[in-house]
Amino acid sequence: MVNIALLGFGVVGSGAAEVLTENKSLIEKRLGCEYKIKYILDLRDFPDSPFGDLIVHDFNTILNDPEVSVVAEMMGGSHPAYDFTKACLLAKKSVVTSNKEVVSTFGVELCRLAKENGVRYLFEASVGGGIPIIRPLINDLSSNCVNKISGILNGTTNYILTSMRDNGATFEDALKKAQQLGYAEANPSADVDGIDAARKIVILAALASGKLIDPKTIHTEGITKITLEETKIAQSLGYTIKLIGYTELTPSGLVALVSPRMVPASNPLCRIDDVFNGVLVDANMVGEVMFYGPGAGKLPTASAVVADIIDIISSQSYAPKTIDWTQATESDQCDFEEYSCNRMFIFRGDLPEFEYAGRVEECDGLNAFIPSNSISEKDASAIADKFGASLVSVYRIL
Amino acid sequence: MVNIALLGFGVVGSGAAEVLTENKSLIEKRLGCEYKIKYILDLRDFPDSPFGDLIVHDFNTILNDPEVSVVAEMMGGSHPAYDFTKACLLAKKSVVTSNKEVVSTFGVELCRLAKENGVRYLFEASVGGGIPIIRPLINDLSSNCVNKISGILNGTTNYILTSMRDNGATFEDALKKAQQLGYAEANPSADVDGIDAARKIVILAALASGKLIDPKTIHTEGITKITLEETKIAQSLGYTIKLIGYTELTPSGLVALVSPRMVPASNPLCRIDDVFNGVLVDANMVGEVMFYGPGAGKLPTASAVVADIIDIISSQSYAPKTIDWTQATESDQCDFEEYSCNRMFIFRGDLPEFEYAGRVEECDGLNAFIPSNSISEKDASAIADKFGASLVSVYRIL
Repeated sequence: MVNIALLGFGVVGSGAAEVLTENKSLIEKRLGCEYKIKYILDLRDFPDSPFGDLIVHDFNTILNDPEVSVVAEMMGGSHPAYDFTKACLLAKKSVVTSNKEVVSTFGVELCRLAKENGVRYLFEASVGGGIPIIRPLINDLSSNCVNKISGILNGTTNYILTSMRDNGATFEDALKKAQQLGYAEANPSADVDGIDAARKIVILAALASGKLIDPKTIHTEGITKITLEETKIAQSLGYTIKLIGYTELTPSGLVALVSPRMVPASNPLCRIDDVFNGVLVDANMVGEVMFYGPGAGKLPTASAVVADIIDIISSQSYAPKTIDWTQATESDQCDFEEYSCNRMFIFRGDLPEFEYAGRVEECDGLNAFIPSNSISEKDASAIADKFGASLVSVYRIL
Repeated sequence: MVNIALLGFGVVGSGAAEVLTENKSLIEKRLGCEYKIKYILDLRDFPDSPFGDLIVHDFNTILNDPEVSVVAEMMGGSHPAYDFTKACLLAKKSVVTSNKEVVSTFGVELCRLAKENGVRYLFEASVGGGIPIIRPLINDLSSNCVNKISGILNGTTNYILTSMRDNGATFEDALKKAQQLGYAEANPSADVDGIDAARKIVILAALASGKLIDPKTIHTEGITKITLEETKIAQSLGYTIKLIGYTELTPSGLVALVSPRMVPASNPLCRIDDVFNGVLVDANMVGEVMFYGPGAGKLPTASAVVADIIDIISSQSYAPKTIDWTQATESDQCDFEEYSCNRMFIFRGDLPEFEYAGRVEECDGLNAFIPSNSISEKDASAIADKFGASLVSVYRIL
């Protein structure tokens, strides 16, 4: 009998309880052993829940119970989630989590503690919700060097951008609708400012490179400045604007950033709409593979949490695989100023054909200039000045 | 030092040698141990290949060498591939394979032999080429009951159908082009008649249900009868015709079939074009997730073969996970006559509005009737007779 404790009985926590209960006989058959949820830690009481009897308020009840060998942390936020995780690993309990904030900030230390204590720290649910992506990167693409990963990693912003494109909603209206539908929080900053996607892309970058970058230090742009006009010009030129988490192992180091990008119709991420997520991996032997599915939500995220629990239980008889990350230093990373990619410059006002190589497309009074060579934002501004036009925005092209 | 033997030095075999060599330092770092390719079995000699010295012609050299612990079978065909695999497992050597014919026909016995001999039989490359799908189904979706799997499992037929839709090529012309490009064999039957897809869908069905169906017994329709007219009518109605391998756990048993299907634009498989493959999994907790990528080709397929080799080497210190399949009996399966799904009936000639519920759409002299209730092919023929029209074809709708 394996005893499991859940930390947090919010959306994901209650989902994990549901998955562990609904699919119990099937999972126990696959495991060849029995399990039970022994405790659920939450500040609140849930007298009407079938799991109400399992609620405890004191973390030490779980920590000090030697019968509990697997703990699923689904509290969100850095503290006390990090502190509880650390305490569990030191007490030789394996931990699984959906908490990207903790993994992206403290992942190096927590993976090391797991290894030192002969237990495991798994976080499939921290990126892409229910989409299998962490374990496939570790196991299925183990024969490859991963060159690049680009992903639609945040369902809320993807819903908003899809709504702007397909329904002509403004950012504000689309956000309001997303909040009404429960896709966005009352304070939507973590989503719309790209913070959530930044946490996820550094986790994927660490899986590709072994180096974990502090998510607070990467270039992070959100979607709040995207206008309906830009959405339209993108579409008329065969692109869709998506919030893309991107990482690449360049010859001069690791790059990770989050920004809105012009995604061409030929890129499979172009067709990932609404709240869905997609992760496109470019690796040296397999080429491009994509993982698609529900990037958030109660049961999908819980499905990944429970897959990690199953992985741990089914491997308890042998030495666990370990994840060895180090914190990325400046020398591991490419100087962001030197990281170049194709861009689209959007101008208001006439922009006649001019000496720069590239193509200019006109749409609804806006001009989009896609240079064939990488030019700087400063150069683009100078072009605008020269023709009495004004530079409205700059988009990276995926 | 782990000694590996490769059986077959064709497209996939030479790819595996390349992956194991090109990414050697990276893979050995991940494994924490060294490996080498000790033998490559092939009937031919390859004096100009850098691997030429490793070629052996006698399988017994490999079988009787106790140093060889992992064998990668990439010969294709049932015999002697099956016989060699069996001999290796009995000699306590783990086997990985890209051979869907052997897995789909002899999988029950070979998985059992692996288990009995404390070794492993892995076949990630047998479905979807380089796309991670087998291991994600076993590990990442382990918390789920898989309800349905639908997949574009054959790149050759997908290339032909994409070419018919986008370039207006006839089936014959598109096939000729596919042969010129090396996507189709001189004898294309295994691809265009759906045989390859049938082998793959029974493997996926076995992973979902634990029951392996003989692929020769499932309903298998190919793409040879699809006309350009039907491709056009599909598109004008918002569908794309794709060759779909489909399996479902119905209340009355397991269903597996291969047939061309009308895929609506809302289904993510609709957008998988050219030689790419996509597998859409519907599971009870996560909902729908899709895996997309190169379904064939030298290095992508070899990438999956080598991922399996890595999996085996990295798990040699502990008791291997086992796959327990049984051969599906008639009682495990849904009576195919009783398996119903929505269909589209295509008629030539006028088809006025009539008493059957559903919608009729006219396109280029053809009428497409999509009944809101499932009706039989016999009923559809009767409708055609009644109005002096003729039933041209019947398509299942995905």
